[in-house]
Order: sequence, then structure tokens, then C-alpha cells
Amino acid sequence: MFESDCAKLQAEGVALVFAPTPEEMYGPESHRASTTFVEVPGISEKLEGRTRPGHFRGVATVVSKLFHILEPEAAFFGQKDAQQVAVIRRMVQDLNLPVRLLVGPIVREPDGLAMSSRNAYLDPAHRKAATVLYGALMRVQALADAGEPNASILAQHGRQVIAEEPLARLDYLEIVNPDSFDPVEDVGQGATVVTAAYLGSTRLIDNLVLHAVGQSSGAR
Amino acid sequence: MFESDCAKLQAEGVALVFAPTPEEMYGPESHRASTTFVEVPGISEKLEGRTRPGHFRGVATVVSKLFHILEPEAAFFGQKDAQQVAVIRRMVQDLNLPVRLLVGPIVREPDGLAMSSRNAYLDPAHRKAATVLYGALMRVQALADAGEPNASILAQHGRQVIAEEPLARLDYLEIVNPDSFDPVEDVGQGATVVTAAYLGSTRLIDNLVLHAVGQSSGAR
Repeated sequence: MFESDCAKLQAEGVALVFAPTPEEMYGPESHRASTTFVEVPGISEKLEGRTRPGHFRGVATVVSKLFHILEPEAAFFGQKDAQQVAVIRRMVQDLNLPVRLLVGPIVREPDGLAMSSRNAYLDPAHRKAATVLYGALMRVQALADAGEPNASILAQHGRQVIAEEPLARLDYLEIVNPDSFDPVEDVGQGATVVTAAYLGSTRLIDNLVLHAVGQSSGAR
Repeated sequence: MFESDCAKLQAEGVALVFAPTPEEMYGPESHRASTTFVEVPGISEKLEGRTRPGHFRGVATVVSKLFHILEPEAAFFGQKDAQQVAVIRRMVQDLNLPVRLLVGPIVREPDGLAMSSRNAYLDPAHRKAATVLYGALMRVQALADAGEPNASILAQHGRQVIAEEPLARLDYLEIVNPDSFDPVEDVGQGATVVTAAYLGSTRLIDNLVLHAVGQSSGAR
């Protein structure tokens, strides 16, 4: 790891870092062609999985390896990668992994852009335009709060927000069940809005948990 | 479990048995279609895997689940299912499972037939003919001990033994690397002879570890 990363972690009170090399994790190249993998079918093929085939297989496999090596009581993941959370949650449940998953909330810049190491790749114009993802999520939230329950209509409004930003190119904006990542028809029982868009050559993702109607408007 | 099984286990000093129902292991039927699985590619598709597609995926998945539920220090498997041992060994290695594998030797009837719950399905004629599997393995061993290193030639002689038994129908007899289950050309460095044959409608398997030449003849 870089020294600057270590300093940051120490400042946060981190005592130990496990940062194995690819060779330590996967053995020699010759071994990797037919190596064991963990697959969470269904969720893994949708949205992010469509853009990045094999990605969630890699995630599930390496996370199960890390759990076996470290045997943690709890493991922390970020809500920003909502689909990754869903894949790992399903894997933990299906394979009876003895670990508690804790999901940290999305942390945002003052203008709403979700924090991401990828934001550093954005030039000033694309950085400014990047707030359109959060804008689209907020539009969906506002319409749901105003009583629109139909997920297709809500998603269409969200997509329209991104379509109106000339520096952004929409990949997807969908409203899904947060466990299965199947599309929902109605957001009344709660759902997650997930979106991905290109800002120039940088692909950003963001999401927002819509609370069940009745809970949501009072809380804001 | 049946009461008679429990009595047998108690007589052996077994303190606890974990025998979950399918529902406990796999959840409700509706959940099973897109459930997480563990796949060991390569080994899983060969020999037994060719006859029983998906079998080793099921084995790897349920064994990893059992390891997560029980977190054992050691787990015992039988050499009779040599390919299952290879699949589980590879999975434990690739996924860094914190468990020690211990493999028990094949236990044989006085006439050489490997013990198996399936032997109960054999009528007296087929039971008698079933010794042909062990006979074939012994033929290979004897020729290897006599100095024949060529795996193709050895396997051909083994198959011939089974072909000469009218009540048996050969499925396969191969000489393989015990880790990869890839065929070997030469048995000089050790190899495993694996065979499967039908005795009537009952499919039996057996295997024999050929020791590296030089070690083997002295030991017998």
C-alpha cells in the first residue's frame, strides 16, 4: 500500500491492514484458469453485471476467500455499491457464512455527488455536470413523496433529468427490489433507485433507498 | 435419521450428529432456483461429472455450507469417492477454507469388493461378478509393478478384465493425476486408477492409488 494510505488509516485508529498481493490471493498464473469460484446467479447478471460480465463472480469469490482467511465477526461494505451489497448479502445467506454484514451509508460532496475515487478523473465541466445523478434520484424521491407509486413513471422522470444534461450519457436508471435487484412495479413497499451514467469517459454510479410510502415524507 | 443409524453411531462413540432437512439446508423451494453455488471447474466435468452433470457443483456447495455452519477443525472423507476428494481438496485450497481434510482408506469385503451402500442392490450373481472392478485395479497394479509405465497400455489391460465379465458393463477405467483428474501418460510418478461399471442396473465405482515406481514393489 502507499504510505499516504497507511497514514490515513492510522489516523482513523486502524490497527491492522490485510492487503495481499494477487499472487498471495490467487496463486501462480498457471493455477488461475480453472480455479474455484462462487456464483450468485440472478442478481449478478443484472445492471452492473450486464456492463461488467464476470464482475460479481469475482467479487463473491474474493469476498468468500477473505472471510475464510480472516474469519471476521463483522464486515463493512458501502451502500454506494448497492448491487454488490445485494450479491454479498445473498451469498452470506445461501452459503451460511458466519459473518455479520454492516452497510455504511453513501457519503456525498456538498453538492450531492456521491464520493468516489473515480471523481478525481472528472475535469471541472464534467465534475459540475456529475451532480445530475443525484439530481435524478432526488427527482424520483420528490415525485414518490408527492404520491406517484408507479415505478415505470418514476424511472422515466429520473432518466429525463439525466437526458437533459448534455455532458452525461445515461447507462441505466431503474427502480428495483434491493434484495433481488428485480424491477418493481410499485414503490409503495420501498425500493431502491439505481443509476449509472458516463461523464465523458468516466462511469459513475449512485443510488437512493426509497422508503415505504407513509414513512418517507414525515422523515424529511 | 433412523434409530438403527443412531445406535451404530453411538456404538462408535459419536457424541453429536448434524443431520439437517433439505429445508434447513436450502430454504423454501422458491428460494432454490437462483441460489448461490460453488463451482470447481475442470475436475468437476470429468469422469463422474460427465455421468452426473451438476453433481460436483452440488457437492462443493453443500460441503462449503456445512463448513460454514459447523466450522470444523477437520473433516473426513472417503478415498472411495476419489474424485469428490479431489474436488473438495481443490475447493478448500482455492477458497482458503480453514479446515483440514482427512481421507479414510477404502474398506473392502474379503473378496476385494469396495464397501458401499449400493452393494445391497446386487443380486447374488451380480454381487459375485462385482469383484471384477477390484480385479481390474489389481491387474493394473501388477503390470505396473512388473515395470509397465505406459498409462494407456495399463488402462487397456484393466478395461479388458472388466470386458471379460459378462455381467459387468464398463463405464470408464482411466489412470489420472489424483489432484487434477487429468489423464497421465506415465505412472512412474504415481497416479490413481479410477473405474466405474454397471452390474445390472447398479453403478459401482472403485479406485486404486498406484505408488511411484520403486516404492511400490518393495511395499507389497
